[in-house]
Amino acid sequence: MNPRLEVINTGTELLLGSVINTHLQFLAEALFPLGLRIERQVTVPDGRAIADALQETFGRAQIVLITGGLGPTTDDITRDIVAELLNLELVHDEGVMQAIEERFIRRGFTLGERVRLQALRPREAIVLPNQNGTAPGLYLPPLPLPNCGQSSPHIFLLPGPPRELKPMFNEAALPLLQKLVPAGASEFKRNYRITGTGESHVEERIGAELLALGIELGYCARPGEVDVRIIGSKAILDRAETIILRHFATQIVSMDESSLEKVVIKLLTERSQTLGVAESCTGGFLAHHLTNVPGASRVFQAGFVTYANDSKTRELGVPAELILEHGAVSAEVALAMARGVVRVADVDYALATTGIAGPGGGTPTKPVGTVYVALASRQGKELVRHFTFRTDRETFKTLTTQAALDQLRQQIQ
Amino acid sequence: MNPRLEVINTGTELLLGSVINTHLQFLAEALFPLGLRIERQVTVPDGRAIADALQETFGRAQIVLITGGLGPTTDDITRDIVAELLNLELVHDEGVMQAIEERFIRRGFTLGERVRLQALRPREAIVLPNQNGTAPGLYLPPLPLPNCGQSSPHIFLLPGPPRELKPMFNEAALPLLQKLVPAGASEFKRNYRITGTGESHVEERIGAELLALGIELGYCARPGEVDVRIIGSKAILDRAETIILRHFATQIVSMDESSLEKVVIKLLTERSQTLGVAESCTGGFLAHHLTNVPGASRVFQAGFVTYANDSKTRELGVPAELILEHGAVSAEVALAMARGVVRVADVDYALATTGIAGPGGGTPTKPVGTVYVALASRQGKELVRHFTFRTDRETFKTLTTQAALDQLRQQIQ
Repeated sequence: MNPRLEVINTGTELLLGSVINTHLQFLAEALFPLGLRIERQVTVPDGRAIADALQETFGRAQIVLITGGLGPTTDDITRDIVAELLNLELVHDEGVMQAIEERFIRRGFTLGERVRLQALRPREAIVLPNQNGTAPGLYLPPLPLPNCGQSSPHIFLLPGPPRELKPMFNEAALPLLQKLVPAGASEFKRNYRITGTGESHVEERIGAELLALGIELGYCARPGEVDVRIIGSKAILDRAETIILRHFATQIVSMDESSLEKVVIKLLTERSQTLGVAESCTGGFLAHHLTNVPGASRVFQAGFVTYANDSKTRELGVPAELILEHGAVSAEVALAMARGVVRVADVDYALATTGIAGPGGGTPTKPVGTVYVALASRQGKELVRHFTFRTDRETFKTLTTQAALDQLRQQIQ
Repeated sequence: MNPRLEVINTGTELLLGSVINTHLQFLAEALFPLGLRIERQVTVPDGRAIADALQETFGRAQIVLITGGLGPTTDDITRDIVAELLNLELVHDEGVMQAIEERFIRRGFTLGERVRLQALRPREAIVLPNQNGTAPGLYLPPLPLPNCGQSSPHIFLLPGPPRELKPMFNEAALPLLQKLVPAGASEFKRNYRITGTGESHVEERIGAELLALGIELGYCARPGEVDVRIIGSKAILDRAETIILRHFATQIVSMDESSLEKVVIKLLTERSQTLGVAESCTGGFLAHHLTNVPGASRVFQAGFVTYANDSKTRELGVPAELILEHGAVSAEVALAMARGVVRVADVDYALATTGIAGPGGGTPTKPVGTVYVALASRQGKELVRHFTFRTDRETFKTLTTQAALDQLRQQIQ
């Protein structure tokens, strides 16, 4: 049984929404390989609120990580609160003071009175050096709690700024944490990214069967895709994988959390094939996804954001009569756009999108959300699919982009 | 005295680090104008852990917002836990069931058994409709707690996916919350979006002067822009505004949190002028920003993602010799791209970007991060600027997009 670990983040800016909490992700990913999971996370404002949050963990958690409140300003009182709750005396640490002084001299700053407070630490604490700031981290081993038969958890005090926290955690905290975990306790984690279906559909088809294996199962849904996350021993994960593949083989985008665009660029790179896109309703979002992948330039040649009808005709040679007859949002025009890209940009594959993102522009026969996604290839392969994505404008663009990329992925896989 | 509000986020994916918690920021910013602040935030895994977290708020908080765990899968048990703690019976809501059925029919999905569970709600709950998903939100007014003289807090159950939570919160939860806040308790808040400078530079120039007025001051920096947020009485905010305008008049994009692209589309719409773009290094991101603005089609005509050199020559008529002489990443080619768009797409204004996003592709004279942003107009106006944005690929695209849009904003304002 691994120790229970909890995280307390202090920082009024987090609760005001001025800053997004990225600590949790960093800490979770760093802890997982040790077999440690964050069982609970709390955010409290600067100041005394941390006292309650810490006290709540006593008797429940074996390890507590606290971030923030170690700096020199008046609202930085994490160190004092912990000393008070554990009834510990703060002593001046000469080694810390020297490190602070050297840092100030190097930067040409003068040393203020409040800065010296950062050299105070409980006598029982181990200092975690800070390479990127003045406030050191501290580790407190379990100590008897005042007026109570229990011991305190292992407590780690860590700085708030990510660029100070991250190296300190990796270099000084992780080695200490490693010693607190029983050997061989670590679990394995796998992730399957499935496209073209919803969370509830995925669970209906495989949920019961997977849970019967005794694994831990989680889902994370984003527009157009679902991540299925399984945690357990290697042998059981192998059996779970067989089940997932049996049901979703063709819809699995990746097993390493790679995005659809990364997978498509990789497949085309391996084949030395090129790609172009023509976008109406996705308005550049499809090209943006593809060009987010480092090395995309070997594959992706050109994109056309043909928003106006004229532009479809002029840039891609879509016949004006075709647009007049079927409308700009039609299977015929989507295909003509894709064909146009293959010809004009001289590429192996082309994807095209045309639809009505809304909020305006819908008609009775083609309501807001109507979209056509087409694929054409130099070899003459042609596909077109119709969807209705009735949602907000940005999600519409995301779903359409996913559908277009997946059409290509299925074709070249 | 405003009611104390706490937030509980459920989601194993948050504690595993697979997903970053962006709810807190959204909720904090939406609550602020009501005079409400988040006093504490807790993240717990899916499942029963939410029971403890909710119970801890009893007697301490007057309002509790819970996100996540409302979906159809077996780990979605927020609704059940709340009913259990408050000793409430779950009843089938026919209105919710109809909305779910309509959604499924529209999308051509079949209705599974688990989906029906989402139509269950405590009899005492008010349904918060979900425009972007099946699971409705719920609001529970204070109710007597079992085995205890107290009442429960006002409890809001909200969905986990941001695209479901945000519209629901704005449309259904905020009006209810408004009624819970004493009238006249709210302070005034203004926000100035400043582009082309960094947070520390803004603070150095105006921070001390603003704080001397006795206002609450906050900064929120994003790539390429800084929001300066001031809170206080109307009279003091007027004085603060004078200071901010004196220093940053030309760099203020908006005073209502409008994005740069929204401002640009609005200005061009008022002038009945059209726009086209040519993108190399931004790879569609500039077009994507512009086409995110509802009504962009009146202004935005066409975009060219000319990633390959051939494509710059073929689509935009950039002379191959010019590319050979100066390189694709040069002021000359950026300008030729912009000119090409004005001519080919027949637009009033054109923007063009060419640069080296990295991680590969840098040279000693043109290192990774080098970028040229050009503007051309039908009237013959031509501008080109050079920047070096040494950062990750996506931030590079963002900074370049911001720089291009701001070049146009300053020109037409």
